[in-house]
Parts: sequence; structure tokens; C-alpha cells
Amino acid sequence: MLEELKQKVYEANMELPKYGLVTFTWGNVSAIDRETGYFAIKPSGVAYEKLSPKDIVIMDLNGNQIEGELNPSSDTATHCELYKAFPSIGGVVHTHSPWATSWAQAGRGIPCYGTTHADYFYGEVPCVRNLTKEELKDYEANTGRLIVEHFRKANVDAVPCVLCKNHGPFAWGKDAHEAVHNAVVLEEVAKMAARCEILNPQVQSAPQELQDKHYFRKHGENAYYGQKSNTPPAAGHQN
Amino acid sequence: MLEELKQKVYEANMELPKYGLVTFTWGNVSAIDRETGYFAIKPSGVAYEKLSPKDIVIMDLNGNQIEGELNPSSDTATHCELYKAFPSIGGVVHTHSPWATSWAQAGRGIPCYGTTHADYFYGEVPCVRNLTKEELKDYEANTGRLIVEHFRKANVDAVPCVLCKNHGPFAWGKDAHEAVHNAVVLEEVAKMAARCEILNPQVQSAPQELQDKHYFRKHGENAYYGQKSNTPPAAGHQN
Amino acid sequence: MLEELKQKVYEANMELPKYGLVTFTWGNVSAIDRETGYFAIKPSGVAYEKLSPKDIVIMDLNGNQIEGELNPSSDTATHCELYKAFPSIGGVVHTHSPWATSWAQAGRGIPCYGTTHADYFYGEVPCVRNLTKEELKDYEANTGRLIVEHFRKANVDAVPCVLCKNHGPFAWGKDAHEAVHNAVVLEEVAKMAARCEILNPQVQSAPQELQDKHYFRKHGENAYYGQKSNTPPAAGHQN
Amino acid sequence: MLEELKQKVYEANMELPKYGLVTFTWGNVSAIDRETGYFAIKPSGVAYEKLSPKDIVIMDLNGNQIEGELNPSSDTATHCELYKAFPSIGGVVHTHSPWATSWAQAGRGIPCYGTTHADYFYGEVPCVRNLTKEELKDYEANTGRLIVEHFRKANVDAVPCVLCKNHGPFAWGKDAHEAVHNAVVLEEVAKMAARCEILNPQVQSAPQELQDKHYFRKHGENAYYGQKSNTPPAAGHQN
Repeated sequence: MLEELKQKVYEANMELPKYGLVTFTWGNVSAIDRETGYFAIKPSGVAYEKLSPKDIVIMDLNGNQIEGELNPSSDTATHCELYKAFPSIGGVVHTHSPWATSWAQAGRGIPCYGTTHADYFYGEVPCVRNLTKEELKDYEANTGRLIVEHFRKANVDAVPCVLCKNHGPFAWGKDAHEAVHNAVVLEEVAKMAARCEILNPQVQSAPQELQDKHYFRKHGENAYYGQKSNTPPAAGHQN
Repeated sequence: MLEELKQKVYEANMELPKYGLVTFTWGNVSAIDRETGYFAIKPSGVAYEKLSPKDIVIMDLNGNQIEGELNPSSDTATHCELYKAFPSIGGVVHTHSPWATSWAQAGRGIPCYGTTHADYFYGEVPCVRNLTKEELKDYEANTGRLIVEHFRKANVDAVPCVLCKNHGPFAWGKDAHEAVHNAVVLEEVAKMAARCEILNPQVQSAPQELQDKHYFRKHGENAYYGQKSNTPPAAGHQN
Repeated sequence: MLEELKQKVYEANMELPKYGLVTFTWGNVSAIDRETGYFAIKPSGVAYEKLSPKDIVIMDLNGNQIEGELNPSSDTATHCELYKAFPSIGGVVHTHSPWATSWAQAGRGIPCYGTTHADYFYGEVPCVRNLTKEELKDYEANTGRLIVEHFRKANVDAVPCVLCKNHGPFAWGKDAHEAVHNAVVLEEVAKMAARCEILNPQVQSAPQELQDKHYFRKHGENAYYGQKSNTPPAAGHQN
Repeated sequence: MLEELKQKVYEANMELPKYGLVTFTWGNVSAIDRETGYFAIKPSGVAYEKLSPKDIVIMDLNGNQIEGELNPSSDTATHCELYKAFPSIGGVVHTHSPWATSWAQAGRGIPCYGTTHADYFYGEVPCVRNLTKEELKDYEANTGRLIVEHFRKANVDAVPCVLCKNHGPFAWGKDAHEAVHNAVVLEEVAKMAARCEILNPQVQSAPQELQDKHYFRKHGENAYYGQKSNTPPAAGHQN
């Protein structure tokens, strides 16, 4: 069942090594079918060079494995919490991409220093706190709940990614492909922000009006960016 | 029409991913035919792996689309201002190349720390200011006008590139190929200047006489560099 | 003899250039057959592109060359000391991988700043001291003895790698493949820890309970990670 | 004439892009035939992808072009001075490799922080001063003379490379291949030394006895490194 979804989740997972976001198998992508409420996710510990669409695991939002012989990603419960809380999310990705992970290890959100960031993310990429010892007992689900808690008070579509302190990034989007696209943007933005701070330790965020200009020329009703085709590019920034 | 120009603009755009200057479609190259006053530019939001010469859009200097079914790059008005102001410019490129963009985000021009820089750029690569809220209403054209304002008081051929604060670099040259060549040089120079400052926080610009020596052995009447062929290499530096 | 071991040691050596851990021939991998007490190791100074399984040298634990026409790696005595001291070690690797070597040159162990580290290494990767002038007379063996001395008081399986001051890293595992796997992890961890410190000079190690959570969901009796197949992945971290 | 030399100089030049030492044509390699006193060098400004062995230019030590239709590298006079002063040098290379050039721009020699450095270079890689305005009138030859002046008081074989302030590196060896080999080592050493200083701003050079141990196990009468074959590897370090 859901063969098309499994194919797309397979393809999105294969984009992780292509874009240099993962070493070994340090990442996983999922996508949800909102009609059935089932989501497809990478199996745990399968090398990308050996992964095939049939290995993709189908889960429901209660954490039950619906299809697939392999165990799902150990981060499955985190993905599940995001899908349950936010109906606009269709795909989720987790990686240990090195620049984003360095910010997560530093315990810092990524300020918006320029238009590359503002083209995709409206404001700082947040870094959520460590879980308490108590919360660690249900680690993966509580990681998801902590992210959800943050975005209850923010806009989960306007900043489609987060850093988990001492851990690494999660990103999302309307489908698996867009989630990975956002993870690539996050890694580039993390790299440039780090170098920018070295060049100017007193650097401030980009002016709000410039952030607004770039974000809203690509998102929302007055966007005037890209082609007005039936199949607009998955994610915002185009030149 | 202008099939040769479209082919060259296509090829110059394809050099951006080849030289690692772009992620996704974060860049665009144009070139002008001074006889007709028309310029050719990348369409907005088309992935490089799907781009073909026939997709290249033809514009006039009043911003009218002369040919092509796709929308031109959203940065077209910036290119246009540069062509209108400076007759010596035949090609323009914009990227978000990571080192140059990091300097732009830091709000700093790039000092000339060595001969790699001086072989191509005569003096500091400038970083122009943010636009005002008022200027942001006509964002892309005013970005071009701000660059033009700077180079009215400088030499647009001697420093064929600029950083826009909190945004990224533009570069130019006598044609599309040379513009991209200069964008590659800028990225290398930006990388080495950043590392150089870490190694020596008190570093000063290279001595003016050394900058002169390198710049003028490759540019101007007394240049003695390269082969005296009918088709000299597009851009200056040769060993 | 030991043709299968030689083949595996050959393959593990070939992973070093594949993962970018070596320039020229700056690395060597060995593996031991505990039944015979013989170990197989790369010959000294043979380029990877010219290496073949038949070039692999067989040694015993007294340092006698049992088979092979080429001289073994000049670091053979270091490998030998590790095999003699720690029965759980089946493979050893030495490289000059750039990030790990930078920490070694800085004379610093690598603190555990996040889960990427904690998934594999339980606590700081140590940096052992310089040898004394006296110890340098038997350099390679004493390098091994110094590492052994450190791990007599630590857990050689829980932290399967070490930095030698002003020199570079050694890593190990149950076989040659896992040793190289750990060397790749070490290089990634070294890179992210260095960048993390730049982003936050006051950064502290990850909370111990988070380190415990990640290490023990992948190692030991209560691990619940990956597939319960007959051939579990060689090294711990899976997503 | 000297077809074999031209072939080897061609091959050594082609190693520069292979090892990532050059952007565009920012480098040149030469080698000398000590019997005739002629040396072969890359032509100026010819792209590597278009270079062929027949393009290599033959020069004598008085700066006369003996063979070849193209102009020799503009740095030819620098190479010439090195060959005239030091009979042990058989090949010379100049690049703008980014890490070594960053040190040159910073105006700093590279201290010996570890064994990777000490395996090849006995002590600090020096950075020679800027030329005076007067000396700049005969720029390329005086660059060579300045390097020669430094190594009259040092050991040109023990440290086979130099940084020229605000410019970049030169390296040499017994032939063109070894010169390029040393240039690759220099770039790696420059990278690791820069990162090492960030990790430990108070870092000191590696202990002299460790430098001695590594340098002399690979160089000189008591070297015990590598294979005792008829064709020993070109450059020292082997594992």
C-alpha cells in the first residue's frame, strides 16, 4: 500500500547523501498520507547504498507499524508528534548535518543575517532546550513534544526547522522533498552565519524590512517570484 | 533571435554549479548585445539540471520582455541598471556563494590582502549599504542603482564585483563568461581573506606597490602577461 | 594463509581514501586473527591506488614478519601493543585525518558536545601526552604502551579511539571495518566540536543523562536500536 | 628535445588541479635537466584542460627561450633563480593554494605543530618579506633572489618550500613530481596548523625531539622507513 508515498520517501532519503547532509546512516526522512493518517519512514540502520523503496516502513499516528519487515527509524516517535500537532506538515527530516549540528551543540539559535536565510525562514531558527532527566525516559516522543511546544507559540510554516540542543536539526515541509530542501537550506544558512560572526563579532540581524521584503516576495498572497506554472518549485527561493 | 547570446548565457549559467557557487537555483547570469540593446538572462526558478538554451529570456533595457515564455530572473531589474549605467559591462552574475555572502552578511568589504586579489581586483571589494524602507519598495532596481551610485565614484572595470549588505555578491565583466570568472575569483579571495584575518587579526592590506605590480602586469597598456594570441584568456590572472 | 583476513584488511585500507581520511599514504589499517595470534597490516609506503590484497603483510605479536615480501607499516609496533593489551580489539587504524590531527596538535582531548559523539564514544576522546626523550628511543612500541597505559584506567571499548599529542589519531574496533568506521566518526566529531567552540566559547559538555541515553540506546543489554538481524551493522549509530 | 622532461613537467602540472591546489590556471611547475642546464616550464595562461606536453616551454638558465611557441610562465625568472642557486633542486612549483596563501597573506611562517609537518619539513616553513619598491622593478627574479637569500642561511632540502608575504607558496624537490608532492603536504600542514591555533591559541611547536624522530626516521642515513626498493617513493612520509 501507499507505494507512491514509499517511493517518494525513498527518493527523499536518497537526497541526504547527495547533498552531503549525512555520514553513514545519520539521518531519516518520512512523509505522511493525510487521508489514511499513515506515514512512511526510513528503516533503522539501513545503509543508503542498500536502501530500496520496499524497505520503507509504514506507521500510523499511534505508533503502530502497519507495514514493513524492518524496524522503523529510532526517531519515529519524534516524527509522529510533529505530524499529530501540525496538519500543514507533510514531510519531516532529521540529520546530523555538520554546520547545523555545530550550532545545536553550541546551544544557539541561528539569527537571520541575510537574504539567503530570509528567503526561506522568517526569523531566527530556534534552538530548543535539553530534555529533563524525567523527559528523557520517553526520549523520542518528548523531543517531538518539546518542538511542538515551541511552535505552538510560533509559526511552524514560516520557520520550517529547529535545532535540538546538543543533538541536531529537524526540518519539515509540505512533503518529503520540501523537508529535505529546507534541511539543505538550513545547513547552508548555518555555515554562512558561523563565518559571518567570525568576520564581524558585533554583527546584528538583517534589518526587519529586508527580511520582510525577501520572505514575502516568495511566500504568501503577494509573492511575485518564480514561474506561474501548475507545478511551482517545491520550496521558495528562486533567482 | 540572438541565439548565440542565449547559448553563451546558458553556458555561463551552467558554470555556476560547476564551480560550486550555487545551491539549488541561487544564482543567475545575463549578457547584453549592445547593438540591439537587448540582454539575455536566466528564467526565474528553473533548476540548472533542467535548464536549456531555449529557456533563456530576452529583455530590453526598459524592462520589457522581448522573447521567452518563462518569467525572467527576479533580479532582472538589478542587471538592467548595471547595463544602463556602464557601457563597458557585457555580462552580469548574481550568486549566494558562501564566502562572499558571509562577508556581505558581516557588512564588510574585502581588503586586498594579497596578489590573488590584486591580479584581478584593484583595491577593496566594496560592500554597499542596506536600502532604506523607501528604497525597498522598488527593491531590485534600487539595488542596481545603489551599486551604480558607488561605482560612479569608483572604477567599475578595475573592481568588477560588489557585495550587497546582508544579501550577497554581484560580479560583471565584458561578457557572461568573464562575469562568472570574476565571481569565482571573488569567492576564492573572500575565503582566503577570512582565513588570513583569523591567522593574523592585525593584518594590513598588501603594500600598494605590490598591488600595482600585480594588477598592472595583467591589465592596461604595459601588461606583459599571458600569450599574445588573437584570443586572449577572458580574465586576467595567468601563471 | 589468512587470505580472508588479508582481503578484509585490504578493503578497510581502501576505505581511508574513500572517506577522505588520508592524503597520499598517511594511514594504515590492521586486523588480527585471534586463533593464530597473527595480524595483517598494510605495507609501508605503498600508494592506495597500487595496493592489492597480496601486498598485505602478516605479523605475529612478537613483531616477527610471518608472510609478505614488503616491509610492514612503520607503525606496526603500535598496533601490536594494542592487540596484546586488549583482547576485545580486532582491528586498528592510524590516520592523519585533518580535524582529529588538529586537536592532537592542539594537545586537547575532544569533549562530548552532542549526541553524534555520544552515539559512539562514551565520554571525552582523550589526548595522551608526548613521549619522553627516553621513550622516543622505542617510539612506535612506546606510543602503543602509552595508549595502553591510559586505557588500563578507562574503557577501551567505550571510547574506541585516542589522540596522540602533536601526532594524530588511532582508532579501533572488533574488526578492521569497525575500526575505520570509528575513525570516520572521530573525524566528524572533531570537526563539529571545533566549530561548536567557535560559536560558543563557553560551551559545556552535553548533559551526562543525554550522553547516557544515546550511548546506551545503542550499546549494551538494553540497546533498542537498529535491526535485530543476524548481521547487525558494524558500528553503533543508526537513525 | 628533452621530450621525457616535457612529459614529466606536463604530468606534474596536471597534478595541481587533481589535488585541488589551483583555481583556473593559478599555478605552474617546472623541472630542470642538469646536463644541458635547460629547464621545462608551463606556458603562461594556458588552461589545464587544454594543456598538452608539446606546449611545455624549454628555457636556459640565462632566461633565453630555447624551444616552444608559447610564452613561458610569467614566474619563470623565479624558478630560474632557484635552479641557479641550489644544485639539489630538480623541480619547482608555484601555486595560490588557499591555506598556504592565507598564511602568506597573514605574513606568518608555519610553525611545526606535529608529525605530519615533521615527516617532511624540518622546522618552520618560513615566510619571506615583501620586496622593496626598488626590488619590485625586477619582480620575478628578485622574488627568487629573496628566497635564495633566506635559504643561503638555512637548508633548502630540509624545508623544501617557502611562503612569499602577501603572495603565496613556492615548493621544490628533486624533480617536478616531488615538488608537487611537497606543495600538497604544505597545503595540508597549513590547514591543520590554522585549525590547531584556533583550538589552542597558546599552542607551542612540537617538542624538538619528536620533530627529530619523525624527520630522521624518513630522511638521511638512519632512515628506516618505507620499502628498500630500487624505486623509493618520491617523497618521505609513509605509513
